[in-house]
Amino acid sequence: MPGPTPKEFLNYIDSHADGFIKRLSDAVAIPSISGDATHRKDVFAMADWLNGQLKQVGVDTKLVDLGRHTMDGEDLPLPPAILGQIGNDKGKKTVLIYGHFDVQPANKSDGWDTEPFTLTIDEKTGRLIGRGSSDDKGPILGWLNVLQYHHEKKVPLPVNIKFCFEGMEESGSEGLDELVERESKKGGYFDGVDCVCISDNYWLNTRTPALTYGLRGLSYYKVTISGPARDLHSGVFGRMVHEPMTDLIQLLNTLVSPQGDILVKGVDEMVPRPDEDEKAIYAGLNYSIADVEEAAGASIALSADKVSVLMGRMREPSLSIHGIEGAFSGAGAKTVIPAKVSGKFSIRLVPPQTPAAVDPLVIAHLEAAFAKLGSKNNLTIENLHGGKPWIADHRHWNFEAAKKATREVYGQEPDLTREGGSIPVTLTFAESLGVNVLLLPMGRGDDGAHSTNEKLDKSNFLEGSKLLGTYLYELAAIAK
Amino acid sequence: MPGPTPKEFLNYIDSHADGFIKRLSDAVAIPSISGDATHRKDVFAMADWLNGQLKQVGVDTKLVDLGRHTMDGEDLPLPPAILGQIGNDKGKKTVLIYGHFDVQPANKSDGWDTEPFTLTIDEKTGRLIGRGSSDDKGPILGWLNVLQYHHEKKVPLPVNIKFCFEGMEESGSEGLDELVERESKKGGYFDGVDCVCISDNYWLNTRTPALTYGLRGLSYYKVTISGPARDLHSGVFGRMVHEPMTDLIQLLNTLVSPQGDILVKGVDEMVPRPDEDEKAIYAGLNYSIADVEEAAGASIALSADKVSVLMGRMREPSLSIHGIEGAFSGAGAKTVIPAKVSGKFSIRLVPPQTPAAVDPLVIAHLEAAFAKLGSKNNLTIENLHGGKPWIADHRHWNFEAAKKATREVYGQEPDLTREGGSIPVTLTFAESLGVNVLLLPMGRGDDGAHSTNEKLDKSNFLEGSKLLGTYLYELAAIAK
Ligand SMILES: [Zn+2]
Ligand SMILES: [Zn+2]
Ligand SMILES: [Zn+2]
Ligand SMILES: [Zn+2]
Repeated sequence: MPGPTPKEFLNYIDSHADGFIKRLSDAVAIPSISGDATHRKDVFAMADWLNGQLKQVGVDTKLVDLGRHTMDGEDLPLPPAILGQIGNDKGKKTVLIYGHFDVQPANKSDGWDTEPFTLTIDEKTGRLIGRGSSDDKGPILGWLNVLQYHHEKKVPLPVNIKFCFEGMEESGSEGLDELVERESKKGGYFDGVDCVCISDNYWLNTRTPALTYGLRGLSYYKVTISGPARDLHSGVFGRMVHEPMTDLIQLLNTLVSPQGDILVKGVDEMVPRPDEDEKAIYAGLNYSIADVEEAAGASIALSADKVSVLMGRMREPSLSIHGIEGAFSGAGAKTVIPAKVSGKFSIRLVPPQTPAAVDPLVIAHLEAAFAKLGSKNNLTIENLHGGKPWIADHRHWNFEAAKKATREVYGQEPDLTREGGSIPVTLTFAESLGVNVLLLPMGRGDDGAHSTNEKLDKSNFLEGSKLLGTYLYELAAIAK
Repeated sequence: MPGPTPKEFLNYIDSHADGFIKRLSDAVAIPSISGDATHRKDVFAMADWLNGQLKQVGVDTKLVDLGRHTMDGEDLPLPPAILGQIGNDKGKKTVLIYGHFDVQPANKSDGWDTEPFTLTIDEKTGRLIGRGSSDDKGPILGWLNVLQYHHEKKVPLPVNIKFCFEGMEESGSEGLDELVERESKKGGYFDGVDCVCISDNYWLNTRTPALTYGLRGLSYYKVTISGPARDLHSGVFGRMVHEPMTDLIQLLNTLVSPQGDILVKGVDEMVPRPDEDEKAIYAGLNYSIADVEEAAGASIALSADKVSVLMGRMREPSLSIHGIEGAFSGAGAKTVIPAKVSGKFSIRLVPPQTPAAVDPLVIAHLEAAFAKLGSKNNLTIENLHGGKPWIADHRHWNFEAAKKATREVYGQEPDLTREGGSIPVTLTFAESLGVNVLLLPMGRGDDGAHSTNEKLDKSNFLEGSKLLGTYLYELAAIAK
């Protein structure tokens, strides 16, 4: 099905692949970890780098200071948001594009096979391996690739574009909500936007392009047990005092079953059961238990029933225990009684759940569980960050344009998915602008975002760049 | 009560205090952490330093190569043991003195107020603060102080002394058992030893010197749950797969109650209940709940009953959960599902418990608990190291000499204690040599060995040095 997209654009992407990969390599080399104070300067450097790239391809940009915040007790400047625009033709639609240039932490010692901040090209598999390759530097660079063609060849873009790039997505998007809300008002930077496109998630599998119309929300908790004034020797104090680790393990044990059921009363119960129609959507997706197990690298799916496993990710909340801060975490055998330990866990939320509705249940649950222990240690509970879940209308013209573009570039019907992760700003855009938001993923389900050996397949980077450009042309062509 | 100890020796200790503290500072400055491969060279440096010090005060020494071992997958040379002797008079008793020159790990970021490997003298409190100050460099240097007087003043020692110093105590005393067993045989280095003295534990409180006649043993476990081939994103995989952390928390939760009761069936039950006579010993100790809570820095004693709390440490096993390797342990909010997590816990053992008797119970317990979870992840259980508990006859002349020395130096009757920690080599000496072993602590109950801000009080260092010397004179004087 030939589309309105210039063939020359598609060829340009293929013939400029090496340069695009080199640029991705430059981006990955900047360790812009927003959650680590020692890397804050790198998030700023990444903002400068991206700003320079945008200007080079004709985007009119401005850096917006988002103020300061406190992280782990340290007062820090927030990295700037980058706002940009290209085109201002009243006769064209205006699309707002969002991405984030910060990344998750990564150390080679976490189990990476390569240096995480050196983009490594595996010629055999075509994988571009490095932190941020898929989440979310690859997709941002996909847009740059599209813009580079139009700028270099002096081809006018089929739509007006506004950009909103941030550097705090992996740490709760601090400061961005206020910016989006402010700029969405009459006369603001985003005034006049017709629709939004965000490329910051993944295909359901490794074969089928996807459009995503739902995201889970998140509520992230830190539950701390403190007792002794300092770490103690287990020989000297074992069976004399209440040990914080014992108490914390007891609390964490009350949260979730090995089958994934959330044991905090009222949380699972908040979500309505699916009817047969809804189950049919999941049954129709191009997906098998083998896909999740291949992506996870082990036969550990919670169920052999595809629909049940897919619903677990897309329309059920989930609770994961991420780790413990303050306990012995090194190699070897240290006989310590840690004085203060903090369990980290989070709940992924689905409509109608919200952090505001779930937090009191979690806090009451933990306080009641702690009271039952009869411990003399102290309990504190913090919500580190949160975001509401989101659902969009997948029959909107914004989605229809993306469906057409997918057929054109991939020759396939896209999976219509709800995603298990959370990009809280999606909801902010939807609510502030009152327009349709489309999630248009570039990477595959096994990219390993937030994990070791994160990668983006070269073909996803290149075909994905074509898809983003083609989507703009289909957007221009479709009737509102 | 004037003893046989030369007054000049006691005065010498006081008048040379500054030099002794300087020497302790030199010893603490060498970060001889045996459990960290990157510090193995420092354990070797510490052996050289101590060997040089011993030679300077007239000890005839030899370094014994203990071979190599594997730690955290790395093949490493074991630090040498230092054997030494001074005096060979058939008319005198021969005492064997043991100590260890390796230390626990320590980083300022663990919560130290000062640099852990810079001995800091707090003039107000008289505390000598630094890793190893009390465990076990201070006591070793106490012996050096005693020897320095006799060497410098050319005063013959009242007994023959053999020394055995090792650099792997904090990591399971690897290689030492074989050495002690070999050298304890007819014609071996330790042949002819009449008794053993080890200064590597602590007073029960902060006021009363103590002699120790029992030690708990230890069995240290690493229980690993692995599943995914790599860390996963909790948004993408939450409620799709069995999460290793969920499983591990469930397992760790089955081990010990918040009141310290060991829940592994058969472990607590192995220990006979105390009769009224035994309880009377604990009731008589100079000790209160306030002491343990002061040492711990918080009101977190498991009971308000002194006898119950003391028995918890001295004659009951204990189970402590030390931490988790492989989970998220940093600051901030990382939404990871860790792929492979290892819980570290250990059980302190009392007679008649042994690692050989307890290990099968722990393994069977964990395997049964894991089977109940219905998880598709994998379980492995390792015993990282272990040692049997030990009890000595506290009416033996070796103990009587120490009691007299304590009265002489401190003007107090020592507490007769059993200690909660484990020094496995104690049992090796007792069993290999078939002689009485005395534990003669130098430091106080709040020294914080294995913890942050480890310290040795200056008065304990100096009076402790006098005590060690006086003990030698009382040993010489007492009838076998
Ligand atoms: Zn992202
Ligand atoms: Zn991310
Ligand atoms: Zn020690
Ligand atoms: Zn120790």
